[in-house]
Amino acid sequence: MTAVLLEGLEIVGIFAFAVTGALVGVRRDLDAFGVTVLALLTGLGGGMIRDLLIGATPPVALREWQPITTALVAALVVVVWHGRIGRRDPQILVFDALGLGLFCVSGTIVAAEAGLAPWAAALMGVITSIGGGVLRDVLAGRIPVVLHRDLYATPAALGAVVAATTWRLDLPAVLYVVGAAACVVWRLAAVRRGWSAPRPWGRAVG
Amino acid sequence: MTAVLLEGLEIVGIFAFAVTGALVGVRRDLDAFGVTVLALLTGLGGGMIRDLLIGATPPVALREWQPITTALVAALVVVVWHGRIGRRDPQILVFDALGLGLFCVSGTIVAAEAGLAPWAAALMGVITSIGGGVLRDVLAGRIPVVLHRDLYATPAALGAVVAATTWRLDLPAVLYVVGAAACVVWRLAAVRRGWSAPRPWGRAVG
Amino acid sequence: MTAVLLEGLEIVGIFAFAVTGALVGVRRDLDAFGVTVLALLTGLGGGMIRDLLIGATPPVALREWQPITTALVAALVVVVWHGRIGRRDPQILVFDALGLGLFCVSGTIVAAEAGLAPWAAALMGVITSIGGGVLRDVLAGRIPVVLHRDLYATPAALGAVVAATTWRLDLPAVLYVVGAAACVVWRLAAVRRGWSAPRPWGRAVG
Repeated sequence: MTAVLLEGLEIVGIFAFAVTGALVGVRRDLDAFGVTVLALLTGLGGGMIRDLLIGATPPVALREWQPITTALVAALVVVVWHGRIGRRDPQILVFDALGLGLFCVSGTIVAAEAGLAPWAAALMGVITSIGGGVLRDVLAGRIPVVLHRDLYATPAALGAVVAATTWRLDLPAVLYVVGAAACVVWRLAAVRRGWSAPRPWGRAVG
Repeated sequence: MTAVLLEGLEIVGIFAFAVTGALVGVRRDLDAFGVTVLALLTGLGGGMIRDLLIGATPPVALREWQPITTALVAALVVVVWHGRIGRRDPQILVFDALGLGLFCVSGTIVAAEAGLAPWAAALMGVITSIGGGVLRDVLAGRIPVVLHRDLYATPAALGAVVAATTWRLDLPAVLYVVGAAACVVWRLAAVRRGWSAPRPWGRAVG
Repeated sequence: MTAVLLEGLEIVGIFAFAVTGALVGVRRDLDAFGVTVLALLTGLGGGMIRDLLIGATPPVALREWQPITTALVAALVVVVWHGRIGRRDPQILVFDALGLGLFCVSGTIVAAEAGLAPWAAALMGVITSIGGGVLRDVLAGRIPVVLHRDLYATPAALGAVVAATTWRLDLPAVLYVVGAAACVVWRLAAVRRGWSAPRPWGRAVG
């Protein structure tokens, strides 16, 4: 059950992040191949960083065919239909929130199953979910979304903590989905309403 | 035969990429040591990323003395003779194309010999050949060359696919050289003539 | 003795680098959680890169609780008291120099104990000490401090060579502290006096 769920989370997360990478590539006026490279890096990068850190080499993205196929399909969809999907920031942010929510949970599960302590697994979940987007933004010369002033890492931390707790206490697997959904909803609400986390003390809110 | 060829491809590729790193450093007005750091990272970075991903740690650049010596010699040559080599973009692009062609083939071979499937080995070839230049450009605050509008990743993919096919079907080793040369020639022609890959559909060519 | 010393160097280095990451985050106007993410990455990033390269996975920062706790405390201190610590470049540079000196020595020792040759261990020391700051600056969209025109990598190389020599020849452990201190002092003097390493030949000093 958890295994099937995990694979599903991973695949949808890869698809969502790869779409954001491809959309950023289209906005940057890259050719079809550059768009594909950025889609692959964004979709597979977070999981590769995770697999490197937990010592699972070669990473799953180089051992199995589903991850790369998913990312390639996402790139193809964007290259062909980006006119309809739109390539403006709102669309990118929605897909990015989806990837964030799915990866913070799946990254935590994978790390916990590799034997890491719950707190370390949750940290890996955050790193996994942030990693792909950071690679995308650094390569595309954008300010990494994690540094934007609205909430980004906080919802990912919530999802990761829910997942680590669920794993540790062996709670029902549906809580993984709840954790991912909570992250996505919180993230999207933060974008839409301009929520921020508490600011460092003693300074005017700019 | 393949082993000797592989080592040759690696060494020349490291030299070429290290030269580009050092030239970018000189253009950025770094001191001699900063130039050397950038040369080392550019020359050795792609192979280190590859070795991390295939689980060959510590990377060959930390196990053997030839790679780092090659990169140091390249840095020294640039520091002393950069006035003659030139430090303008055309020169950087030529050395970069050379490194790209050599690394997409050598990266593919190394990954295939580590047991990866041909498609994964070819992907590793692309990552290896792109990696060093991306590290160089991100550190130097330049737009990564892989995102430029003229062809970059496509020639690397060609070389990697030729190498993976050659390895898989056990074809004559000379095809590795042909694959590398095809990548270099295509890349240089693309730069000179401003060729691009097909653009994403449905938009005016900017 | 060396083990205790090593752990001490690591912890103080993590604290110093995490403070720089948090201060950069505050300057960038991040929220408290973003500041924490940047503190974690800067404090733990160099050591994670080192552990990946020497094949010690999962990295020590994911196996033990002290590194992350140290980085979290540093982030908390900055979030609460940054008004008094100051968040201007001079303060960031002092903490950064401290982290540089401690990590170039500790990184070298860890790599040498993992079985790398002395020259490779020294190189790992430089990579470890540069890594965290590079991650911080790339993520924050700053020019990486290693590319600044005043000396940065050179003092780190000095500390790393002292540490590698001490380890290889089994000299008294106090020399590790001397190496770290020499790096810190040299780095701070270079910042204050505007020292540079020799420039590439044949060009006017800009």
